Amino acid sequence: MLAIRKTSMAAGLSMENVEQPKELAPNEVLVKVKKASICGSDVHIYKWDKWAQSHIRPPMTIGHEFAGVVEAVGEAVDTVKVGDYVAAESHIPCQNCYQCRTGRMHICKDMKILGVDIDGAFAQYIKVPQVILWKVSKEIPEEYASVMEPFGNAVHATLVEDLTGKTVLITGVGPIGAMAIQVAKAAGASLVIASEIREYRKQLAKINGADVVIDPSCQDLEKEVVKLTNGEGVDVVIEMSGNVQALLDGLKCVTRGGAVSILGVYSKNVEIPIDEFVTFKGLKVYGITGRKMFETWRTADQLLKSKKVDLSKVVTHVIPFQDWQKGFELMIKGDCGKIVMEIS
Amino acid sequence: MLAIRKTSMAAGLSMENVEQPKELAPNEVLVKVKKASICGSDVHIYKWDKWAQSHIRPPMTIGHEFAGVVEAVGEAVDTVKVGDYVAAESHIPCQNCYQCRTGRMHICKDMKILGVDIDGAFAQYIKVPQVILWKVSKEIPEEYASVMEPFGNAVHATLVEDLTGKTVLITGVGPIGAMAIQVAKAAGASLVIASEIREYRKQLAKINGADVVIDPSCQDLEKEVVKLTNGEGVDVVIEMSGNVQALLDGLKCVTRGGAVSILGVYSKNVEIPIDEFVTFKGLKVYGITGRKMFETWRTADQLLKSKKVDLSKVVTHVIPFQDWQKGFELMIKGDCGKIVMEIS
Amino acid sequence: MLAIRKTSMAAGLSMENVEQPKELAPNEVLVKVKKASICGSDVHIYKWDKWAQSHIRPPMTIGHEFAGVVEAVGEAVDTVKVGDYVAAESHIPCQNCYQCRTGRMHICKDMKILGVDIDGAFAQYIKVPQVILWKVSKEIPEEYASVMEPFGNAVHATLVEDLTGKTVLITGVGPIGAMAIQVAKAAGASLVIASEIREYRKQLAKINGADVVIDPSCQDLEKEVVKLTNGEGVDVVIEMSGNVQALLDGLKCVTRGGAVSILGVYSKNVEIPIDEFVTFKGLKVYGITGRKMFETWRTADQLLKSKKVDLSKVVTHVIPFQDWQKGFELMIKGDCGKIVMEIS
Amino acid sequence: MLAIRKTSMAAGLSMENVEQPKELAPNEVLVKVKKASICGSDVHIYKWDKWAQSHIRPPMTIGHEFAGVVEAVGEAVDTVKVGDYVAAESHIPCQNCYQCRTGRMHICKDMKILGVDIDGAFAQYIKVPQVILWKVSKEIPEEYASVMEPFGNAVHATLVEDLTGKTVLITGVGPIGAMAIQVAKAAGASLVIASEIREYRKQLAKINGADVVIDPSCQDLEKEVVKLTNGEGVDVVIEMSGNVQALLDGLKCVTRGGAVSILGVYSKNVEIPIDEFVTFKGLKVYGITGRKMFETWRTADQLLKSKKVDLSKVVTHVIPFQDWQKGFELMIKGDCGKIVMEIS
Repeated sequence: MLAIRKTSMAAGLSMENVEQPKELAPNEVLVKVKKASICGSDVHIYKWDKWAQSHIRPPMTIGHEFAGVVEAVGEAVDTVKVGDYVAAESHIPCQNCYQCRTGRMHICKDMKILGVDIDGAFAQYIKVPQVILWKVSKEIPEEYASVMEPFGNAVHATLVEDLTGKTVLITGVGPIGAMAIQVAKAAGASLVIASEIREYRKQLAKINGADVVIDPSCQDLEKEVVKLTNGEGVDVVIEMSGNVQALLDGLKCVTRGGAVSILGVYSKNVEIPIDEFVTFKGLKVYGITGRKMFETWRTADQLLKSKKVDLSKVVTHVIPFQDWQKGFELMIKGDCGKIVMEIS
Repeated sequence: MLAIRKTSMAAGLSMENVEQPKELAPNEVLVKVKKASICGSDVHIYKWDKWAQSHIRPPMTIGHEFAGVVEAVGEAVDTVKVGDYVAAESHIPCQNCYQCRTGRMHICKDMKILGVDIDGAFAQYIKVPQVILWKVSKEIPEEYASVMEPFGNAVHATLVEDLTGKTVLITGVGPIGAMAIQVAKAAGASLVIASEIREYRKQLAKINGADVVIDPSCQDLEKEVVKLTNGEGVDVVIEMSGNVQALLDGLKCVTRGGAVSILGVYSKNVEIPIDEFVTFKGLKVYGITGRKMFETWRTADQLLKSKKVDLSKVVTHVIPFQDWQKGFELMIKGDCGKIVMEIS
Repeated sequence: MLAIRKTSMAAGLSMENVEQPKELAPNEVLVKVKKASICGSDVHIYKWDKWAQSHIRPPMTIGHEFAGVVEAVGEAVDTVKVGDYVAAESHIPCQNCYQCRTGRMHICKDMKILGVDIDGAFAQYIKVPQVILWKVSKEIPEEYASVMEPFGNAVHATLVEDLTGKTVLITGVGPIGAMAIQVAKAAGASLVIASEIREYRKQLAKINGADVVIDPSCQDLEKEVVKLTNGEGVDVVIEMSGNVQALLDGLKCVTRGGAVSILGVYSKNVEIPIDEFVTFKGLKVYGITGRKMFETWRTADQLLKSKKVDLSKVVTHVIPFQDWQKGFELMIKGDCGKIVMEIS
Repeated sequence: MLAIRKTSMAAGLSMENVEQPKELAPNEVLVKVKKASICGSDVHIYKWDKWAQSHIRPPMTIGHEFAGVVEAVGEAVDTVKVGDYVAAESHIPCQNCYQCRTGRMHICKDMKILGVDIDGAFAQYIKVPQVILWKVSKEIPEEYASVMEPFGNAVHATLVEDLTGKTVLITGVGPIGAMAIQVAKAAGASLVIASEIREYRKQLAKINGADVVIDPSCQDLEKEVVKLTNGEGVDVVIEMSGNVQALLDGLKCVTRGGAVSILGVYSKNVEIPIDEFVTFKGLKVYGITGRKMFETWRTADQLLKSKKVDLSKVVTHVIPFQDWQKGFELMIKGDCGKIVMEIS
């Protein structure tokens, strides 16, 4: 079968012919991959940056956002059956640790990640444990099913608190930020402000429904937020950019007693005036990783199924598997939303 | 000034000329009433039914849903100033009891109710303690400001849980039920089912955005709900009808672990198979009264200000104060949404 | 192996020699049962009452409270290993339904119950799916490990809300009520009132730490509660008795905005003045079944391990397996706490 | 009357004779101060450090922890009456801002602080608005009533989450840390670890009930915590020290998905590896200031009244008002718990 592989400890990826996975363990499932989408972390692996160098051990197949059809099941599998259309968690929990045993598999202590720790999903077939599979509601178009994984990040990060009638600032409008805008609007936020400096993404913010888009490179974000909220600041900040200044801006813009949800990754220490920005304001700060298994998936599925969220505003490119290289080039250039590859 | 009064212990009401309230205590505020809306309980008083007989001591001015302009303030008033446009809680908390001291004034042990325990708001002026006033956002049209009180009931009862991506059944589509439909949709419910037997109200449900309207007098509600939710039942039931069968239906239709929010008043004991309907299902049942002061008001204000909810779909009649009798007749007939009187 | 079996559709049970379970499916575990305790529902089966007649299909082995040592594991088992000391959920969730997929396995739609739907634990060996097993902390004495199942009911029902500094009424002091008293005290309740009419159980309440024990057969419960709480009523009621009057008393005794947690089973409809007792008071009513898998187990384990709860005050009898009949007789007589059988 | 005053912009304080407050506004109350306790911030004012220089405008009376008897009330006062024994919030909320109107007065946007922004409580009489007063339960000894304010900090910071059966690390054992230990134990924590480097305070930790006391100056805190929690880390960290390293240690020691509650003040920026310490761990970080009005006071009162917490283990000195200078000297030296002055 065809697969996109990291074959050496250097930049680049290659499409290769590898053997199709066989021999399913009792709890394993073979999925025929139909769609797969490219994540920023796939691009890190492509570029072979510092993070990739410390996490990836070639040769291996990469990719972790996918959806497809169940092709075969191990003898103990009872959550899916052959023919089911499924998407999947990219995070494989151990099901044994304290977190896993108390309803928090998404922060498993011994998590393995598809396409990072083990062979991934940019391939015609993938073998996965049944615990990570999610049966996709039939109302959800196939091309969006692979995007449920990053969409789940948006859902998880955005719904840290009930947003009905609340004001929200979303800092950073990549694909997940754009989806977060839609989630916040769907959840009843009375005002959704997006902050973003890149033209393409400012457009993405508008297309996805931001009430106001602020460019902090040429506008005073705090001043604008204060003005838009009658001097109160916003109730909730969703930090999606991984930019330190955006986090600090968010902490400044949030109202006393408000919440800051952090999904962005800074890749360095962040210097924070904790007293003034967190303690005296009585803030709640939420670190967000992954998706609750499977509360988040359920909410994501319902939002898509009911058309409260429309991923066609985020998926900007659907390309054939063979054109994968173009997909990566687009991602590097950055003027795109989500890119979906049609695998089979 | 003119006021609608209950003057004797018998059916009917009369518009009379009474003296305008004077002599403000330090924490009191005089409000020039601009709009007032008619509540079902005003109709009870009009009809002089059993409830009215045991709660009302004529002669008194009735009415408790109103909005107006601050005309004068007591010497210690600092939350509003002359000229402010205000709506008001109808429930006057003691501010002293356990509930009041712990953020739960809406369930004060010694609550007094406007137009029931003391002179009410169907008058050109009303004197109220500052604690019950809410400054209405200027974006909210005047004719809807008096409706914020019952709208607050809808907000309070509907938002017992975060509804994003959840399925909801609302039983009973009077004006508050209709508003609840809008609130549930605004809050991100993926499916809002309404049950109602009267033609007029079935239309009201549709106008206010119910995804499906079921008439339990000719359809099997439970069966329909099961079908619409893939056999799961709904996540949340909002019981607005005060009809015993509707409550029992709701308990049957809610999914295991779901929530039932009760605002409806039954005026008699209800016989419930607690084991099967509540305990074994792991349900949460919420009794709802009043509005959280003022969390609910804030949410209500934000939903109206941001146009996530549109009260023009519920306010079906705006009439002059002099035509109050017509308003009551309409209410008794029942083919109406909310009726607003223009007082001054 | 020896097992206590229901062999015919009539009162009574018999100890028989049956074949030891073999042939483990991939996710199954064979446990050598060390201790097992007798539950009220086992007594129902013994007596062959209405409930038993409609739920039990002889011949089968009964019993569902047990602890033991892992003897063998199926090929896909990775949560326990041979030699582990384990207790177990009696409720076997399907792991597939909406509830199971969203962190609520304890209210699975297709639950199977050990010793009711399938062969149970009053036997020298039992074969169970790995999903129900809980590794018992080594600090917990063996004789209390089988009691973790009913103790989990007490933990689940009692901790519906944070009890620190709260006042609590527990109605019904059987073994689970007695454990609930300890849990409430451990959780920081400032006042724990128990109501109970039987002498033996009134003693049990005192031994387990109730601050006040009230006998509603000769005292006015509501009046006493009002007096003990400065007229406020209690914050939380835990209804453990299954007695209708106790539930009604609880609803009367709880403060406005308080919580009522129901574990008791009434076996008939209950007539409730919902308006006055639930709605106008702004109550939350929680139906409780089973134990959260495994949040409740974790809390239970920690409370026992840290000696915040002492089950020696509840386990009143430890008897040899052979004396099982005496255990059932004691249970029927009722003057006992929990009875543990030493199986092997 | 006598009062401890800051009279010039320099180190030191002086006891002076000043005029007793008169002329009560409608919502004001005159309290005869009986007990007052010294806070660390009073010591900052005494020392005239940077914080004091930027916050205090002499001449003024300092002090904010007090209790006493209501001597006179303004005409609109209805929450207390002459003769009531009261303690008080030191934070005077505006009752008008977004936070105040939505049940969060403790994070009022326009807060004024007793003894900082206006004349304080180290005086024989103090005039305060009725909104800050708390009637102290009669079961609570007088000498501990003034300590309810800092005790409230401990209660608020410690009870950010339900601690029943949870493991807790408290970093920094000054008087508030010591009280936090008692609160955590009372709330059902299964393990309370304290970290502290000073001998006196390590003793204080033990006296107040810490299960384990770790000295991070000579022990590896993280390693010890890991060992004590079977490799999991603690569920909740309460940071009371204001020491940057303690915060970082806390973030390391907390389990994935756990909570960190910050009351400590760092007086400088803190450099935090947010990705690794907060985001990837899925933490919740709570900034804590003041006390919830009056949920926290209620809990505090109940814990003291029921003797779940014993402040005699924290109040190490009760001295006459005239000996105030000795009290400040003791505080500066540091080998003390809470110091209470007997004012009248």
